[in-house]
Amino acid sequence: MTAASHPFDDAIAAHTAEPGRLRGHTNPAWANMVGPFGGVTAAALLHAVHLQPERAGDPLALTVNFAAPIGDGAYDITARVARTNRTNQHWLAQLDQDGEVKTTASAVFGTHRDTWSDTEAVPPPAAPPEQIDPTGFPDGIEWARRYDMRFVTGPLPLDNRAQPDSTTTLWVRDAADRPLDFTALAALCDVFYPRAFLRRGTFLPAGTISLTTYFHTDAAELDSVGTDFVLGTARAHRFHRGYFDQSAQVWSRSGQLLASSHQLVYFKG
Amino acid sequence: MTAASHPFDDAIAAHTAEPGRLRGHTNPAWANMVGPFGGVTAAALLHAVHLQPERAGDPLALTVNFAAPIGDGAYDITARVARTNRTNQHWLAQLDQDGEVKTTASAVFGTHRDTWSDTEAVPPPAAPPEQIDPTGFPDGIEWARRYDMRFVTGPLPLDNRAQPDSTTTLWVRDAADRPLDFTALAALCDVFYPRAFLRRGTFLPAGTISLTTYFHTDAAELDSVGTDFVLGTARAHRFHRGYFDQSAQVWSRSGQLLASSHQLVYFKG
Repeated sequence: MTAASHPFDDAIAAHTAEPGRLRGHTNPAWANMVGPFGGVTAAALLHAVHLQPERAGDPLALTVNFAAPIGDGAYDITARVARTNRTNQHWLAQLDQDGEVKTTASAVFGTHRDTWSDTEAVPPPAAPPEQIDPTGFPDGIEWARRYDMRFVTGPLPLDNRAQPDSTTTLWVRDAADRPLDFTALAALCDVFYPRAFLRRGTFLPAGTISLTTYFHTDAAELDSVGTDFVLGTARAHRFHRGYFDQSAQVWSRSGQLLASSHQLVYFKG
Repeated sequence: MTAASHPFDDAIAAHTAEPGRLRGHTNPAWANMVGPFGGVTAAALLHAVHLQPERAGDPLALTVNFAAPIGDGAYDITARVARTNRTNQHWLAQLDQDGEVKTTASAVFGTHRDTWSDTEAVPPPAAPPEQIDPTGFPDGIEWARRYDMRFVTGPLPLDNRAQPDSTTTLWVRDAADRPLDFTALAALCDVFYPRAFLRRGTFLPAGTISLTTYFHTDAAELDSVGTDFVLGTARAHRFHRGYFDQSAQVWSRSGQLLASSHQLVYFKG
């Protein structure tokens, strides 16, 4: 960590303690209500796999299971390859703190080849980010200040009005101009606050249990996004007896679907 | 396994070899082109967790990573709890064959509580299953004969015509009248053939890499489905350089969203 380093890189930084075991530390700049922003935890686990010398290819799929809140302080990440195939590789990772399992993860990496390609989904309609005021989250949510957020639809329900549709669409980019890469994209997929807030018109206890992200892009395409805004959209399908899902898409401004992401969320109320 | 047992229960059966390690066997009735139907592998892993004496609650989320093809014959499943909380439990499971990792999985189980509930998604339009001829898959796909399938839209492209939309919607139920439970629902979430077939109008090499299912239902609601048809729908969002995603929903006839499921698929062509 140097004076010139970026807050996001600081937050996901880890040094190898022994082969397959890394040591990291929570970062106050990325704090959520309880523990760190889930997106930065997902990114830290993906980064830990990426740092492994035998890692091959780009991330294709990442699943992170949030087993228990991460406390402020140091943590250990273990990463081991479960299987290496000719074109892909399956990884398992785990974040422990004081000997307790806090987060588990699996990641698939693979090589890209030129094939028939098509984007069937369409991005949601949105005015350009330059025409929308940055609003973000209330001041108490520290991690949200790391992003420049411009809501197209479904901002936080600060007016306490319940909405019939759980959709949020926003332009978002790193507030400190860090160029987009796979780890930053993994974090971005979790910027959508719990959909139950919007439907109920209020904040309520809620937390992600499991998060899965599919990376639909490759390194060259990601590089072309640079520090520009991306367009994120998320919605829920069913709220039932203490749990709901939300599905998100992250689009480049030029219309490339960079990632799709899904999560299961616990809620009360 | 008795003469009266059901083909699905035979396929997911496992006996405990030692605490946390179970022994199972592939079943020819559920064979796919290469190895078993992925849905039955997902169900076998979920079932292995379900059999653990310390398991608590209903399945909420399941992720299965298909690391390598499973050969015909015996396999071992290990299941261990990573974390038990007051209302949920995180499990890790792995399927090995001859000392090689074939499949890894994570599962979250939890208790249901009465909360505000709402189904925001809507089922696709469909005529009743009684008005649609059962067609299913070509004869070579053994596992597909275990289901009664009635396609509303997007049947297998046997006419070799590429379609502009990757959506398949079908009514499906167990052909041998096994009532629906969580394991059967986990398997059903994988009945959708690779979306690239429909877009390209042809069969091509493709295989699921990672599959995540969210169970939006509870045991009582599932029981009420019994042996009736459920309505499944699936579509892709992006096909890019060797990979695509597909997202599916499974609905009860009475309009309950039982599960949503997502997968990343490898393809050639």
